[in-house]
Amino acid sequence: MSQLNQEAEALVKELPALRAQYQAVCEEHLSLDMSRGKPCAEQLSLSDELLFSLKSKDDCLTASGFDIRNYGLPGGVPELAELFAELLDVPAENIILGGNSSLNMMYDTVCRAILFGTYGNCLPWKDQGKIKFLCPVPGYDRHFSICKRCGIDLVAVPMTGKGPDMDIVEEKIKDPSIKGIWCVPKYSNPSGETYSDETVRRIASMRPAAPDFRVFWDLAYVIHDLEDTTDKLLNIFDLIKGTENENMVYAFFSTSKITYPGAGIAAMVSSKENIRHAKEDIAYQTISPDKINQLRHMKFLKDADTVYALMKQHARILKPKFDMTVHIFEKYLAGLSFVNWTNPRGGYFISLNVMPKTAKRVAQLAKEAGVILTPAGATFPYNNDPEDRNLRIAPSYPSVDEVEKAMTVVSLCVKLAAAEKFSE
Amino acid sequence: MSQLNQEAEALVKELPALRAQYQAVCEEHLSLDMSRGKPCAEQLSLSDELLFSLKSKDDCLTASGFDIRNYGLPGGVPELAELFAELLDVPAENIILGGNSSLNMMYDTVCRAILFGTYGNCLPWKDQGKIKFLCPVPGYDRHFSICKRCGIDLVAVPMTGKGPDMDIVEEKIKDPSIKGIWCVPKYSNPSGETYSDETVRRIASMRPAAPDFRVFWDLAYVIHDLEDTTDKLLNIFDLIKGTENENMVYAFFSTSKITYPGAGIAAMVSSKENIRHAKEDIAYQTISPDKINQLRHMKFLKDADTVYALMKQHARILKPKFDMTVHIFEKYLAGLSFVNWTNPRGGYFISLNVMPKTAKRVAQLAKEAGVILTPAGATFPYNNDPEDRNLRIAPSYPSVDEVEKAMTVVSLCVKLAAAEKFSE
Repeated sequence: MSQLNQEAEALVKELPALRAQYQAVCEEHLSLDMSRGKPCAEQLSLSDELLFSLKSKDDCLTASGFDIRNYGLPGGVPELAELFAELLDVPAENIILGGNSSLNMMYDTVCRAILFGTYGNCLPWKDQGKIKFLCPVPGYDRHFSICKRCGIDLVAVPMTGKGPDMDIVEEKIKDPSIKGIWCVPKYSNPSGETYSDETVRRIASMRPAAPDFRVFWDLAYVIHDLEDTTDKLLNIFDLIKGTENENMVYAFFSTSKITYPGAGIAAMVSSKENIRHAKEDIAYQTISPDKINQLRHMKFLKDADTVYALMKQHARILKPKFDMTVHIFEKYLAGLSFVNWTNPRGGYFISLNVMPKTAKRVAQLAKEAGVILTPAGATFPYNNDPEDRNLRIAPSYPSVDEVEKAMTVVSLCVKLAAAEKFSE
Repeated sequence: MSQLNQEAEALVKELPALRAQYQAVCEEHLSLDMSRGKPCAEQLSLSDELLFSLKSKDDCLTASGFDIRNYGLPGGVPELAELFAELLDVPAENIILGGNSSLNMMYDTVCRAILFGTYGNCLPWKDQGKIKFLCPVPGYDRHFSICKRCGIDLVAVPMTGKGPDMDIVEEKIKDPSIKGIWCVPKYSNPSGETYSDETVRRIASMRPAAPDFRVFWDLAYVIHDLEDTTDKLLNIFDLIKGTENENMVYAFFSTSKITYPGAGIAAMVSSKENIRHAKEDIAYQTISPDKINQLRHMKFLKDADTVYALMKQHARILKPKFDMTVHIFEKYLAGLSFVNWTNPRGGYFISLNVMPKTAKRVAQLAKEAGVILTPAGATFPYNNDPEDRNLRIAPSYPSVDEVEKAMTVVSLCVKLAAAEKFSE
């Protein structure tokens, strides 16, 4: 008998016991939300000095003496751009500071390309017929949603553990209707993987058929380590500088998971020409971002070392939750050959692959037992996980005890759903 | 001899003396910027308590207990929406709170209509061929710029002192390619006029040929009085409620000129259906606006009476500057039949009409003498003031003494440019 057959037989035998356990869990009336990558209250409080970092109106001046309470400075507070430049290892002049949402900067960048075209005198995307984006999967649902809303078709490309499968990417971009790719290159959402040097080099040297192809490089977790050492991510801007791909990459960053998710500072990084081009358009949209919050951030974050120390405090809070998740999975699911999960060194998510054709059922069972997960399928374009296997686990918000409880419930649901499937 | 001929003869005779005076002024090397409606530092300091209005993390909760430091609450802080609702006399549920820029909300609203269409299943504007907006003139250059960037043609409609010429508006909107009109109905930019009851009623009962025609109702100065009494503006939402025009109006508001221009709170007001429709789209764009700044505003602004008291403090600072502007114009220009100016009861601008074909020359002369005005023509679409007559005067930023000095220079330039013209 094959291993899978043995597992199936054992699970089918266990089904009545699993059902009884599940019934007991339901009667506990749990209410645990693990659907989104929300920092917990303890993490938020690491940044409460931000509330008081401007002590008086005399603090409302930039280093060059500009009164940030007033209109002006469309590019934002220069010294915060300098700090971000150090964190991201890019020139400060290649940064546009925004409001509180990097998602908004991505959405606006897509909309500008649709309405007005990218830098380089290409036609607006709206005038180029049906266009498409590549979406490494599993990936981030909000990236996919922007395309969906804008009528851009989504083409899934599998992740490999070292980033997207570049053989497939290189093949797909021969189609000139492929205009972009969504990437979370470090501690990817949800797999947690960091793109390998080879992957980044291949992305940097792509030869897309579309001259206005753009890489949307979401550095959401770029300094969000769980371990003492960080994953190394090649600097794609160093690789493309001076090449014909110099204008191919838009990167995005924010302090949403450094300071406050509701009131951080977002930024966009790109080539000198792309930034100049974007700034010209942004001037039609707004007079300036909220510079008060930018200067508050500058006074609170101070310098790169202070930021890294803050990130270590975040890690101290988060790591036990990730460890507990993996511990519970190992405890209850280690024997099942059809289940696997990631054990990331950073970021906000663990990617759990359950038995094929049961992810929706697992999420439903968990929900009915009071544990809300990200909807099954959300990590795929059109919510369509062809194997119905992948679940995104977000351990950041609940306490360690709640994570233990919730993951125990989820593990039970994984086994129960598999046992049900084997019993069909 | 006609009055104009007499004035011309006198001015031509005075030309050498005017030139000498101008030369003397140039040698003073002034540096005064009256180009934009920027609040002055004294006004900004009225709101400095805003910097400290959140005293601790315990203050970071909404009335219903939501921790605004985190993700969530896409509609913003409910109690601030309630306060805006009171100020604007609209239901709170018809308000969307935004970031710091109402211009950004206008731009986004136009872009969404272009990309996705308005509420009511109309085609996206991008799929309807050439479209146009009506622009009452003189008007606000940043409104015009949004249309220009988006490829929407601009059709000028003259202001009458009681709002736009509604005979012309009613005629123009018979063209289904006319999709919108920009209005600043109270203390209009730059004329300072408030739309009369009749104008508002006629706008509310328009019968545009385009079913997706929209009124962009910019309430930028709605509580920005210079006098003890306020101009009465009919509530257009009351007039359209329950009519076939119920979804025709998008209104915009911000605290940019109540608290801080660089870090206020913007809002959009519309019908229930338009707001629901807009919120659905905004959900693709961002998770939530900066709620920390919203709650800071709520704690600082407190209630409508506190806001009105704050506006009176603004008026105490601003009114002497407006009075000085008008006083200087009366002193130097009262005798000239071809010159006129507004004497507004609120808002941020005085509209100055100089001798036809000399506005550009006046602005150039003033600039060379160290006084920067809003560029001549900026108050008209495509910077094209057909009479080259209108100048927007923004007295808010300089001190009263500086206003006196600058307006004396401008008055001299008005006379000098006219004298030059008469000498041709």
